[in-house]
Amino acid sequence: MKTVRVTFEPGGKSAEVRRGATLLDAARAAGVLVASICGGDGICGRCRVQILAGTVDAEPTALLTREEIRAGVVLACQTRVTEDIEVVVPPEARGDGAQILVDEDAERFRALTPTLGGAQDYPHAPIVSKLCVELPPPTLQDYLGCQERLYREIRRRVDAPRMQMGLKVLQSLPKQHRDGEWRITATLGNRGETIEVIQIEEGDRTDASYGIVVDVGTSTIVAHLVDLISSGTLDAEACYNSQIPYGAEVTRRIIHAEREGAGPLREAVVGDINRLINTLVSRSSVELHDVIACFASGNTTMLHFLLGLDTAHIRKSPYVPTTTSPPPVRAAEVGIRINPRGLLYSMPAIGGWVGGDITAGILATGLHQTDRLTMLIDVGTNGEIVLGNREWMLACATSAGPAFEGTGVKSGMRASHGAIERVAFGDDESIEIRTIGNEPPCGICGSGLIDAVAGLFESGVVDRSGRLLPDCSSRIREVSGQREFVLVAAGESEAKGDIVITQADIENLLRAKAAIYAGAKILLGTTEHTFSDIDQLLIAGGFGNYLDRGKAIFIGMIPDIPLERIRFVGNTSLIGAKMALLSTDAFRRSHKIARSATYYDLITYPDYYEEFMSAKFLPHTDLKLFPTVADVVATSTLGKERTDR
Amino acid sequence: MKTVRVTFEPGGKSAEVRRGATLLDAARAAGVLVASICGGDGICGRCRVQILAGTVDAEPTALLTREEIRAGVVLACQTRVTEDIEVVVPPEARGDGAQILVDEDAERFRALTPTLGGAQDYPHAPIVSKLCVELPPPTLQDYLGCQERLYREIRRRVDAPRMQMGLKVLQSLPKQHRDGEWRITATLGNRGETIEVIQIEEGDRTDASYGIVVDVGTSTIVAHLVDLISSGTLDAEACYNSQIPYGAEVTRRIIHAEREGAGPLREAVVGDINRLINTLVSRSSVELHDVIACFASGNTTMLHFLLGLDTAHIRKSPYVPTTTSPPPVRAAEVGIRINPRGLLYSMPAIGGWVGGDITAGILATGLHQTDRLTMLIDVGTNGEIVLGNREWMLACATSAGPAFEGTGVKSGMRASHGAIERVAFGDDESIEIRTIGNEPPCGICGSGLIDAVAGLFESGVVDRSGRLLPDCSSRIREVSGQREFVLVAAGESEAKGDIVITQADIENLLRAKAAIYAGAKILLGTTEHTFSDIDQLLIAGGFGNYLDRGKAIFIGMIPDIPLERIRFVGNTSLIGAKMALLSTDAFRRSHKIARSATYYDLITYPDYYEEFMSAKFLPHTDLKLFPTVADVVATSTLGKERTDR
Repeated sequence: MKTVRVTFEPGGKSAEVRRGATLLDAARAAGVLVASICGGDGICGRCRVQILAGTVDAEPTALLTREEIRAGVVLACQTRVTEDIEVVVPPEARGDGAQILVDEDAERFRALTPTLGGAQDYPHAPIVSKLCVELPPPTLQDYLGCQERLYREIRRRVDAPRMQMGLKVLQSLPKQHRDGEWRITATLGNRGETIEVIQIEEGDRTDASYGIVVDVGTSTIVAHLVDLISSGTLDAEACYNSQIPYGAEVTRRIIHAEREGAGPLREAVVGDINRLINTLVSRSSVELHDVIACFASGNTTMLHFLLGLDTAHIRKSPYVPTTTSPPPVRAAEVGIRINPRGLLYSMPAIGGWVGGDITAGILATGLHQTDRLTMLIDVGTNGEIVLGNREWMLACATSAGPAFEGTGVKSGMRASHGAIERVAFGDDESIEIRTIGNEPPCGICGSGLIDAVAGLFESGVVDRSGRLLPDCSSRIREVSGQREFVLVAAGESEAKGDIVITQADIENLLRAKAAIYAGAKILLGTTEHTFSDIDQLLIAGGFGNYLDRGKAIFIGMIPDIPLERIRFVGNTSLIGAKMALLSTDAFRRSHKIARSATYYDLITYPDYYEEFMSAKFLPHTDLKLFPTVADVVATSTLGKERTDR
Repeated sequence: MKTVRVTFEPGGKSAEVRRGATLLDAARAAGVLVASICGGDGICGRCRVQILAGTVDAEPTALLTREEIRAGVVLACQTRVTEDIEVVVPPEARGDGAQILVDEDAERFRALTPTLGGAQDYPHAPIVSKLCVELPPPTLQDYLGCQERLYREIRRRVDAPRMQMGLKVLQSLPKQHRDGEWRITATLGNRGETIEVIQIEEGDRTDASYGIVVDVGTSTIVAHLVDLISSGTLDAEACYNSQIPYGAEVTRRIIHAEREGAGPLREAVVGDINRLINTLVSRSSVELHDVIACFASGNTTMLHFLLGLDTAHIRKSPYVPTTTSPPPVRAAEVGIRINPRGLLYSMPAIGGWVGGDITAGILATGLHQTDRLTMLIDVGTNGEIVLGNREWMLACATSAGPAFEGTGVKSGMRASHGAIERVAFGDDESIEIRTIGNEPPCGICGSGLIDAVAGLFESGVVDRSGRLLPDCSSRIREVSGQREFVLVAAGESEAKGDIVITQADIENLLRAKAAIYAGAKILLGTTEHTFSDIDQLLIAGGFGNYLDRGKAIFIGMIPDIPLERIRFVGNTSLIGAKMALLSTDAFRRSHKIARSATYYDLITYPDYYEEFMSAKFLPHTDLKLFPTVADVVATSTLGKERTDR
């Protein structure tokens, strides 16, 4: 393999990479952090670097001006190296590891929006916000009470025909008005069409306004700390959902709650969120008191557990939740520790099995605004699928299982530092891996698993039914009667232990991808469409920063449609929740989306099981459905050349 | 004194009464309970009795039909006996002691309304009410969540564009929907323009809907238990305000709260209300759980203490309260023990010194709807005065002191059983008294005190400056250096102890009446009116069932205008609060009234003190202002003939 050397300035770090690698790959190899918000999809434009010496092979892009192109500026992810070069990474493209992870969702959204038909910006108007008002001191002619005086002043500034205030805030008014010398900051929270004054502070405290956005996934909980003034994400943190011991899947947890009570499940998720908040707040210079809102997204069951709502009926037909649009509640009422009077909002759900995370996904991707037929697949422990456009939306859920989230997989882990997110098989049984954060590998996350299984299939190490074939690789061994493939041995690539893919892992993956594919096919059939009618296929989920679309097709998780119609859109549950936190209009729109989308129940569809069984092969029992894969399988020597990019 | 015998059927009870006594007096003397809602004012029409034998002297009335008159039906309170007679008390006129006291305010209001110009009825629609709904069980086609299903059904029945629900109620929905077999009763509380579902009960529980109305007076707290379905008052109870030890007057209590904290004052009033509620609930067959609302009326300071709001600034110019329209709060939040999710409403105030009790008074009397120039004087510890009509309203407060409420008076008591409410002086130093409930006298209430001082003045026992003249009555004695008049000696009329009127009591009364008169005069002057312009003078207050208008003029408390323009309207604070509890429209109207009335600050009026000092005589320094009194004083032998009726 011919290699070239890429040197990065300032700093002079360099790396040997194979010819044809992207500048982004080279930067990673050299340990240079280059901002890459979109995960290398060429849509965020953040990885602008400048070529000092040497020539490169750069993809055309609309994100660079003519002046930039003349000056040698390229997008690192869209540029392949062909000879030794020197590159300058300008300050704005210098990623700091944490920062990249942090801003990526918000940035990804900003980058995505313009590419979706009919997308519109939502004005910045957080659902909880602070307003500083100067009150005219009372006189014998202007003898309004403190509350009425405050309301009058607020109404001079914002449209708030209906206002309310709790007794505690009311009790504090006279002293705070006077101690603040009639200059006070009111924190205003949206409660439906009513504005609640949730707290009063003396003087101008408008600059200290923070919110937490949390995506409560079945397997993983991700929280972002957001500055409500700048809309910037200050920090991000994630953890496994501590409910996992009660069951990897939603249904098992509901059954557990029915039998043993939901208290421990509620406490588990509340504890997780509080720990995430504590970490975020203590890492930043933010006071917990200034965190005035928490916005939760997640599937209907997760949000029910969080709010202490009964989940039992979600499990049984007709799958009715307690509510699809939980009202804002005092966060403290459910045990979430932010400002004691701060509000907890929940993203409205479409139904019992298509939750707020999907509403958020629609909001984030603008599916509800586009003219083009769009399919959104949110790959998590449940695989939810939305099909539609600005005219109509149909949604269903499949029981994918947590394989894509790295749980229920022997060496699985969530997409965090040290997780293998990319795997490439060499001709010589060599395996190249890439981990998140370029750290020593600790395990494998969803995108890595897809890459690995695709590679195993492509190399002929697994057959179309997913069986590991011991004769085809020296990396296959048998442990406790089960075959497993050693992806990375302990010590190799600094790995602390063996990282393996077991036969059971592959079967879990096949079930998961089959569930998603079958669901997508049926949803299309219901509306008399086929895969080829899809103008845009958006893949959401917490895979990490990356999903190799070609390999997802290769294993038959997503249909074999042209790659340019497919886009990985990241954690849209979190992105949509952040949009709603930052814009009352977006939050209102989320309710409209939730009400207008129709829930389609797959279980009652008679052919679902048959479709599912047919899809449990690599890529499918019917190879004609995957012509590009069929080509590769037929000419297996060409296999390695078929990758996403 | 010539007496006649009146015999009542059924039962045959009889009494000897003086000729000229009313049939109502005779019934009381005979121990026969005749319903008398208006306290003998001839306006309620409830005391219809039929003359079997004998003739009587009956006042003309529009409340009886020609047929009734031909059949010998008369109003007991408007009919004087001149010879021995037999009377039949029909079942509907048979009062039961408790019931009479109970219904009087509501009935008085009903009786009054038609006589006020522009009065209108408010539709029966309690601010908290129960609604029984049948929910269609969910199906795969109709998969709305429990909350959304309930809202949909409620909205099919009532106009509720904005609804909310607390987390606890939301948590209870799935089980209650199913346990109630999809037939449940929602308790709906008005919160501004939003309807809150405050509780859910299984099955139809609409018949068990009760509310408490409470008038939190500075001296006396009165509570009624109201059936929200029938609008009927089930029971009434009153007590002294336990805050009295902290100061008889509002200002003293505010100062106490500033120095020592408001906690004990709040606890005192909350404790009083809870004791009243407990008494009412335990005497009836009502479950505390079914008491879903509490409506509090009272002056601004009392309602501030109740809600735990700062009162300090009410005391100092510009007299600004924390709020003039306290929001509804969970009653439990301030410690009021009704249904734990029941709401506590407060009557909105006009200003710091013209409170919700006055707003209620305007609402109850329809002052805001009449074309006629009306003055409403609420005689309590503060004497508040409203002047106006449908076009404008001006209100002020005077610091009358608690004399009219029976506190700050040596033998004083509030208007309850055993209180002397009427006093008549005979030529021979004999004194006739009437007590509330015809029980042995325990003390003297406001109306009795007015009667007594008027009588003392008329008999020449006190002079125009209010001094007791020891030479003029053998009942005057000196105790600890202070003169006092023995109204009833221990043992006399079964009294348990001496009931006296001291020189200090008279001075307190004069200060109180002077404050009210001076305030009324200035308020009129401000709008360039005089007393003779007043079309209606309405006297409100907790005097008991009765106020002798003639004697109130005689002591100079109210101006000397024709008696037919003066009406005693009872406890309008309670009546108005009950109207607001029973009608959302009335409650809304109360807010409009509170906003549209203008507060007039007497303290800043330069001549107030002079007016007050001039009014501290009997009836006034300027006798020309009281021509009818001047006539009596001039021809003192005629004095006894001048009474209200």
